[in-house]
Amino acid sequence: MPEYIDLTHIHTDDMPVYPGDPCARLYQTSWIKENGFSDHIIEGGMHVGTHMDAPLHMIESGKLISDLRIDQFKGRGLLINARGKTKIEPDILTPYTLCKGDVILIWTGWDKKFGTDQYYKDWPYFTEEFCDRLVNADIAMVCMDTPGPDLDAPFPAHKLLLKRQILIVENVTGLETLQDKENYIIHAYPPKYMADAAPVRVFAEIL
Amino acid sequence: MPEYIDLTHIHTDDMPVYPGDPCARLYQTSWIKENGFSDHIIEGGMHVGTHMDAPLHMIESGKLISDLRIDQFKGRGLLINARGKTKIEPDILTPYTLCKGDVILIWTGWDKKFGTDQYYKDWPYFTEEFCDRLVNADIAMVCMDTPGPDLDAPFPAHKLLLKRQILIVENVTGLETLQDKENYIIHAYPPKYMADAAPVRVFAEIL
Repeated sequence: MPEYIDLTHIHTDDMPVYPGDPCARLYQTSWIKENGFSDHIIEGGMHVGTHMDAPLHMIESGKLISDLRIDQFKGRGLLINARGKTKIEPDILTPYTLCKGDVILIWTGWDKKFGTDQYYKDWPYFTEEFCDRLVNADIAMVCMDTPGPDLDAPFPAHKLLLKRQILIVENVTGLETLQDKENYIIHAYPPKYMADAAPVRVFAEIL
Repeated sequence: MPEYIDLTHIHTDDMPVYPGDPCARLYQTSWIKENGFSDHIIEGGMHVGTHMDAPLHMIESGKLISDLRIDQFKGRGLLINARGKTKIEPDILTPYTLCKGDVILIWTGWDKKFGTDQYYKDWPYFTEEFCDRLVNADIAMVCMDTPGPDLDAPFPAHKLLLKRQILIVENVTGLETLQDKENYIIHAYPPKYMADAAPVRVFAEIL
C-alpha cells in the first residue's frame, strides 16, 4: 500500500474566509431519523479553505477549472523551506533544482495560524522576482500554506503565475510532514466546476 | 505521459438535480474588468452532478466525506456492461472476476439522457442480490452513469453498500470510452467536506 499524506484543511461550516468574501456555509439539512437520509447544503465563494485558482481568476479569457486537463493536477513534489520569511524571494530556491512540470510547495508554517485572527494578516507573500523564477522553470503548480501569493491588489504574483498557466493552490496544511521524505508526487484534484476556482483535494503520494 | 479519461460531468449553473433537491447554483459574482479578479458563488446540496456518497448519507453515525482516507479513493477499474437493463441483477457479473478493492463501473449508457426530462425517471436500479454480490467481493467503490443505485425510499441498495463502507459514485459519464481498455485505475477524489456527500473528480488512468 503506498503511503499518502493529506495536505487539505477540513472544509467545515463557517470556516474562515479571505477578508471581504461571503461567509462559507456547509450545514446539514436532512437527517436519517427524520427523513431516511442525510444531506448538506453548501453556500459560499470558491476561494475558501484549500482551493485551486484557475487562470480565469485573474486573467481575462483565462481557463476555468472545468477547462483544465487531468494531467495538469499532479507532478513531482518539491518542498521549499520558507519558514521565518516575511516575503518569499528567489534566494530561498538556492538549495533546490526546479524542473519542468514540478509541483512546488512553499512551506512557511503559516497554516498553524489557520482559524485565528492572525491568519489573514500580513502572511509571507511572493515577490515578482520569485514568480519569474517559477515561470522560467516551467513548473506546473505552486502550493502554499498561506492565504495566497499576494497580500493585496493589484495581485502581481497571481497574474505572473496564472498568465503562464501555473496553477495556484492556497491554504494547504501539514507541509512539515514532508520534510523527511525524498521522493513524492503531489496530486491536487478539484471538482469539475465551471468556475474560476474550486476547492481541491491535495495530497502527497510517497514513492 | 499516462493517458487519463475524465468521467465527470461538468458542474454548471442550474444543472439538473435529483427530484425534490434544492436548485444547484454556480454563478459569477466578480469580474476582472470591474473588480480586478473573478469569483463565483456556489449554492446547493451535495448530491449534485458527479458526486460521492459517504456512509453517513444513509447510515446512522456513518463516516463523513472528511473521515475517509485517501487510499479509499482509487482501485483497479472494472467496466460492467449493463446496457439495455431496466434493473441491475447478479447475472450481469457472470463474465467478470471481482476482486477485493476493485472500483466497479456500471455502464448503462443512461448518462446520454443527462439534461433531459428522462434522466431522473425510472433509471436502471440495483437489486439487493446484486448489492450482496458487491459486498461479498469486498469491492472499494461502485460508480454508475445513472442518478443512483436505488429508484426510491427506503433505499435498500444504498444501505447495503454504505453499511459495508463501499463508496457510491453517482452520475458519472463517458464509460463507453473504457470498453476497449484492458487495465486501468479509477480515481475519485472529493474535496474534504465535512458532509455526507461531495462532488467528486472521477477519472481513469490507463495503464
